[in-house]
Amino acid sequence: MIKYNKRKILNDPVYGFITVPYESVFDVIEHPFFQRLRRIKQLGLTHLVYPGALHTRFHHTLGAVHLMGIAVKELKDKGYEITEDEAEGVTLAILMHDIGHGPFSHALEHSIVSGVNHEDLSTLFMERLNQEFNGKLSTAIAIFNDEYPKRFLHQLVSSQLDLDRLDYLRRDSFFTGVSEGIVGSDRIIKMLHVVNDELAVESKGIYSIEKFIVARRIMYWQVYLHKTVLSAEYLLIYILKRAKELSKEGVSLFATPAFRTFLDRTVTLQDFENEPQLLNQFAELDDFDVLTSVKVWKNHSDVVLSKLSGFMIDRKLLKIKMYSEPVSVSKLDDLRTELAKQWNITKEESAYFVFTDSIANSAYNLKHDRINILFKNGEVKDITEAADTLSLSVLSKPVEKHFLCFPASLTNQL
Amino acid sequence: MIKYNKRKILNDPVYGFITVPYESVFDVIEHPFFQRLRRIKQLGLTHLVYPGALHTRFHHTLGAVHLMGIAVKELKDKGYEITEDEAEGVTLAILMHDIGHGPFSHALEHSIVSGVNHEDLSTLFMERLNQEFNGKLSTAIAIFNDEYPKRFLHQLVSSQLDLDRLDYLRRDSFFTGVSEGIVGSDRIIKMLHVVNDELAVESKGIYSIEKFIVARRIMYWQVYLHKTVLSAEYLLIYILKRAKELSKEGVSLFATPAFRTFLDRTVTLQDFENEPQLLNQFAELDDFDVLTSVKVWKNHSDVVLSKLSGFMIDRKLLKIKMYSEPVSVSKLDDLRTELAKQWNITKEESAYFVFTDSIANSAYNLKHDRINILFKNGEVKDITEAADTLSLSVLSKPVEKHFLCFPASLTNQL
Amino acid sequence: MIKYNKRKILNDPVYGFITVPYESVFDVIEHPFFQRLRRIKQLGLTHLVYPGALHTRFHHTLGAVHLMGIAVKELKDKGYEITEDEAEGVTLAILMHDIGHGPFSHALEHSIVSGVNHEDLSTLFMERLNQEFNGKLSTAIAIFNDEYPKRFLHQLVSSQLDLDRLDYLRRDSFFTGVSEGIVGSDRIIKMLHVVNDELAVESKGIYSIEKFIVARRIMYWQVYLHKTVLSAEYLLIYILKRAKELSKEGVSLFATPAFRTFLDRTVTLQDFENEPQLLNQFAELDDFDVLTSVKVWKNHSDVVLSKLSGFMIDRKLLKIKMYSEPVSVSKLDDLRTELAKQWNITKEESAYFVFTDSIANSAYNLKHDRINILFKNGEVKDITEAADTLSLSVLSKPVEKHFLCFPASLTNQL
Amino acid sequence: MIKYNKRKILNDPVYGFITVPYESVFDVIEHPFFQRLRRIKQLGLTHLVYPGALHTRFHHTLGAVHLMGIAVKELKDKGYEITEDEAEGVTLAILMHDIGHGPFSHALEHSIVSGVNHEDLSTLFMERLNQEFNGKLSTAIAIFNDEYPKRFLHQLVSSQLDLDRLDYLRRDSFFTGVSEGIVGSDRIIKMLHVVNDELAVESKGIYSIEKFIVARRIMYWQVYLHKTVLSAEYLLIYILKRAKELSKEGVSLFATPAFRTFLDRTVTLQDFENEPQLLNQFAELDDFDVLTSVKVWKNHSDVVLSKLSGFMIDRKLLKIKMYSEPVSVSKLDDLRTELAKQWNITKEESAYFVFTDSIANSAYNLKHDRINILFKNGEVKDITEAADTLSLSVLSKPVEKHFLCFPASLTNQL
Repeated sequence: MIKYNKRKILNDPVYGFITVPYESVFDVIEHPFFQRLRRIKQLGLTHLVYPGALHTRFHHTLGAVHLMGIAVKELKDKGYEITEDEAEGVTLAILMHDIGHGPFSHALEHSIVSGVNHEDLSTLFMERLNQEFNGKLSTAIAIFNDEYPKRFLHQLVSSQLDLDRLDYLRRDSFFTGVSEGIVGSDRIIKMLHVVNDELAVESKGIYSIEKFIVARRIMYWQVYLHKTVLSAEYLLIYILKRAKELSKEGVSLFATPAFRTFLDRTVTLQDFENEPQLLNQFAELDDFDVLTSVKVWKNHSDVVLSKLSGFMIDRKLLKIKMYSEPVSVSKLDDLRTELAKQWNITKEESAYFVFTDSIANSAYNLKHDRINILFKNGEVKDITEAADTLSLSVLSKPVEKHFLCFPASLTNQL
Repeated sequence: MIKYNKRKILNDPVYGFITVPYESVFDVIEHPFFQRLRRIKQLGLTHLVYPGALHTRFHHTLGAVHLMGIAVKELKDKGYEITEDEAEGVTLAILMHDIGHGPFSHALEHSIVSGVNHEDLSTLFMERLNQEFNGKLSTAIAIFNDEYPKRFLHQLVSSQLDLDRLDYLRRDSFFTGVSEGIVGSDRIIKMLHVVNDELAVESKGIYSIEKFIVARRIMYWQVYLHKTVLSAEYLLIYILKRAKELSKEGVSLFATPAFRTFLDRTVTLQDFENEPQLLNQFAELDDFDVLTSVKVWKNHSDVVLSKLSGFMIDRKLLKIKMYSEPVSVSKLDDLRTELAKQWNITKEESAYFVFTDSIANSAYNLKHDRINILFKNGEVKDITEAADTLSLSVLSKPVEKHFLCFPASLTNQL
Repeated sequence: MIKYNKRKILNDPVYGFITVPYESVFDVIEHPFFQRLRRIKQLGLTHLVYPGALHTRFHHTLGAVHLMGIAVKELKDKGYEITEDEAEGVTLAILMHDIGHGPFSHALEHSIVSGVNHEDLSTLFMERLNQEFNGKLSTAIAIFNDEYPKRFLHQLVSSQLDLDRLDYLRRDSFFTGVSEGIVGSDRIIKMLHVVNDELAVESKGIYSIEKFIVARRIMYWQVYLHKTVLSAEYLLIYILKRAKELSKEGVSLFATPAFRTFLDRTVTLQDFENEPQLLNQFAELDDFDVLTSVKVWKNHSDVVLSKLSGFMIDRKLLKIKMYSEPVSVSKLDDLRTELAKQWNITKEESAYFVFTDSIANSAYNLKHDRINILFKNGEVKDITEAADTLSLSVLSKPVEKHFLCFPASLTNQL
Repeated sequence: MIKYNKRKILNDPVYGFITVPYESVFDVIEHPFFQRLRRIKQLGLTHLVYPGALHTRFHHTLGAVHLMGIAVKELKDKGYEITEDEAEGVTLAILMHDIGHGPFSHALEHSIVSGVNHEDLSTLFMERLNQEFNGKLSTAIAIFNDEYPKRFLHQLVSSQLDLDRLDYLRRDSFFTGVSEGIVGSDRIIKMLHVVNDELAVESKGIYSIEKFIVARRIMYWQVYLHKTVLSAEYLLIYILKRAKELSKEGVSLFATPAFRTFLDRTVTLQDFENEPQLLNQFAELDDFDVLTSVKVWKNHSDVVLSKLSGFMIDRKLLKIKMYSEPVSVSKLDDLRTELAKQWNITKEESAYFVFTDSIANSAYNLKHDRINILFKNGEVKDITEAADTLSLSVLSKPVEKHFLCFPASLTNQL
């Protein structure tokens, strides 16, 4: 009798079922470096606005693996050559593409680690895993780093239409309940081709691509850059900033050992390379360390830290207002002065509650991104030239928005 | 005990359940004039491309009634006054908005009735029903004809964001399986307001509106004007044209009595007004009369009629090619000459198999349509001015496409 | 460049996309014998109760083909041998399994054809097609008829858990909107195995099977045997019965040529075998012939035919009442006498409006059906022995219900 | 202009949108006692098996509030009297029904608090909130405690068909992706009536109720009592047990201040009543305290605690085997002896890795539970008498299962 537990199947509310396709994929999933992604939410603090958005990087990554399986089958069925080794490699590559993410990446990169982004850390993790797995991940790493001869494999992992995006847009849309962001990932995958070693979408898929770009834009403004989400994220940035400063000054702070390491010192990429143990410490860090600490800090004696932490835990977020122009220095100064008076704190302290920044987004970046459209006559054009009706070039203009965060008690000053 | 069958509930795959909200609505639904809509597909021949698209005008209308109930409740909850009589009237108005549709409206209006569109017929049907119901429908008719004081009620029935559209886009998207066309009708309704007696959408709904316009555009190009659907529809137009000509020449043709009436003579709006019986005859006409006749005509002795009818029944549609410019007369002439030779028919006959026409669509018509956006400060702007990022003005440019239909045997000539 | 239109893809609201997997499958679909299934609704008159239930046998069959593709892949992935020829054969077999269905099968088999069921006709159609396709369908036919060595292939086409059922339950549930009938077809397919040349479900799928049986039972009572659906179906049976009798008596009746053939004479299976042309005539018959005729008969001079036909077209169905015991002959007689008096018709005529019959259903037939459960130790048991908690044996008891149909004017007599 | 932010709307992937219906509901949601439910997962450790199951008690409670709104409207529409005050009260009652839940309730109640269940704590929280809200919650509390004259209001909050269940079954089914558990909550609510001050379901809803009971049963065996979920939950119970023992012995353990309180002493219900501050401490406890501590304990010097904690964090759960009979003491003893030898630990220590327990479930409890079915003639019967076909009495037999947990290294001993 055939052993029927060989292939692991997972339930997924988005796709129904996800099958783990290779033993090597299973082994990476089992590794503590990967299991930690179970404790890192894909969308950080977004659940404070969309209560369903609690899905993790672990779940997203498995979804991307699932879509990769469909894409590889589709391309092979169409006659494009993908060897068994390449199929496994590109699957492992998408599996590990987010492995370097820490908790609340955006906030952390602004405050805790310095000059180290999650792509750098992904590379470090992959190399470490490759050692443990005796080079089994080499093809995957080559594909991930765009050093593999067949470039289109890299594009499946990282490009305008990669499976990462196709999964996260759909998944984020699903769990937030923002149905406008739903992307026809199935249809797009069905229309993929390879021309000149690059991915291309056949011309009748042009409306799906347009829709994809518009959906992505909607997700940006409605979810990823939702103003209340921004407010929550910046609150966390300022909490961590304060905690780090206090920590430097020698003030005692509740923290897990791993979190303490990154509060006490500012770790650089070079540090990670010189001290292998640091990566293990980083691997112990997740949403739980950060949130638990913030919860305890709510009762800290430092008034700035305790106030900010309480705001986070009890969801009394700072108000936020969007502007098309930068907020003037003098306005900011006035508001801080006013708050210092109201709350009887110093003006330096008030800067933790009244601050400004800006965000930018373009749905489609004409310079860096390309989406190839394949016409029936074999011709290939970029989508912005191919779409005869909706001027996608409009979508490629970056939009910058400025915002100001402040406590409710200042509302009348604005 | 309370009688618990008073309120009729229908299962609907789109919304789950639809409740029939008024006795008067129930009575209109029961009327044969309305029951006939059960036999008229919402999307005519589209099911030849999207096999699920078999839903009827009956079903769509009930869906629009359902959404009207939600919209009315939402507006009342927000404090806008809608009396019980107005609520019933606007519901009856949406219920009857499509009552004048015949089978395959587009094809029929091109070939059978002359200068009579379904809006004219809707008015005739409503008046007839109002007589039968002793004036009970007067408010509804006034709202439908935009003659009721509160104009926003008419806009719920007919405007850029009316419940007709919100239902049909969602329903057509659902049954075709074109998920890109899904519209967040719930969200849009939740954001409706009334300002200066006009409907307006609150500003945070702006992305949903953008998405709605893009989704509508996608449905146009991917479904309503899908080239194979066009080809099928024009095939029917030419079948009916031929049948009508043969009928005029006295050639015997299979047809139901009601259908025969409209094949034998060309009925004008004035005829409908002068001969009340004609409306009853029209009310007996539905998809079944037309399709059944075409099926029988497949074996007719007229080669043009039988060939065209066979193409329809066995789904051997004419090829179709799209052009950005009109097809030249000489090219058309050449192709017809060639076909006449190939099939040994006259050139006049070949014109039934080789023909050209054009279609136009703009997702948003700047001149006729407005979507009011209501800002927090009470200001109202049109969406094209309000949307700071996606230039919707682009979407309002009408797009015209030309097409050529021809039998496969001419493919090499093109 | 690879020609990218080779594989045909269809939109399906149920599964998203359906790919036509073989050229031979494509060719059968294109055949007029198969295209006719586009005009035969899967659920006959059920749409009079569930307005979304307009899906066709054409669509269902393509859905079953889609599921077959998944099942074959799943079994092959698990190591069970299915050759390419067998895979194609079993797909063609499921494609053609319903090809013998006429319009409103149940009603037709009760009234028009005599002693010929759709399975007989399927066989006739398959043989005819096999001739046309030069024997290409032989493997498919052998599998369909359970004459192929690997019996489990036949079970994929016809058994308790065949892909026919897995599609129709899900599809019928989808289009009616009866969400309780949704079946986890994906999960069941994922758990299929082959043991001793029979299909088996691995033991952890036992709850899914239970759910499947319960869902099927719900669909029976809530949809297939819904009392209003029964009333509509029996109305049609009596319409056809009357029409046939009138036809025999030489009364002139509107009908398409193909329909007339079957009204004028009673065709037996032997007739079909002796007169090959009869199958072609049958192939021209679909929902349109029947419904169009009923519509015209609404104005027939025979009062029984016209009344019954009007009831159908305007959806004024007969009342129906369910009983656990048969309705007594005397009661029936009384009611008919009363109606004859009320309507001034003969008692014989009144029997067309007052009649009784019974229906039976068991969700799981202990004698004929088996669902094998495969345990981890390799043991195989029938589900009724394997399910330790819910006594499925209860579900296998056939339930019989009796019903009485009558016009509303008799309501007080009951 | 009407202020359009008055009514708060939340996105919910399950229902689309949830509207916060009363100011008082909004105020309770804003309270830190309620906000904490954002950090307590509805299904504890179930996400280790179903990665989507991360939804919180916060989200579930809002879902139940949403369904309550529909149910109240439905009952009022049918003519049953519910005053505005009662409507608000019953909504507040469902809002607060789970407010007493701590993190991983089942595990906590087995290990940390003693003889205090979440219902007791809910009562304490409600009373505290009622003081803060100046008695505004009195009606709600009376309804919750079944002390309000109209008993059916209590049944909407707590009974076989309460809105709590209707939400959690649907929500748990949604987020786990176990589609078999989907419950037609809309349909059931549409069929609710009140007879003799008790909820009843009209008779045509009988299949939906059957389906509901079967779905619930499926959710029990497939999700709530899934063996791997059990294994994870018992792992946590043993971790907390060990931690508590070490804590008692004075061993230093990482923990947040609030968690430390409950590790250091065993708090009884009387303690909660005597020391009001304890409730505030409990209110600071959530999933984050527990999981973060377990993460740190992975590196603790106590080998039992560190091993168990590592198993949890890296998801190397104990194996689990189900039995229909209790596991014998001698077998357990043998296995512990063997493990003590293998791992060089004491036999007492090995009892943390090898243990047994049992679980029981009946889908429908004949004694305590009733589901009233209302027939058209006004008669009311319990579902087990009313359902003529499926013997629901079968479902009411409690099913007991025993299980044994053990490390993989003992697999060969079994």
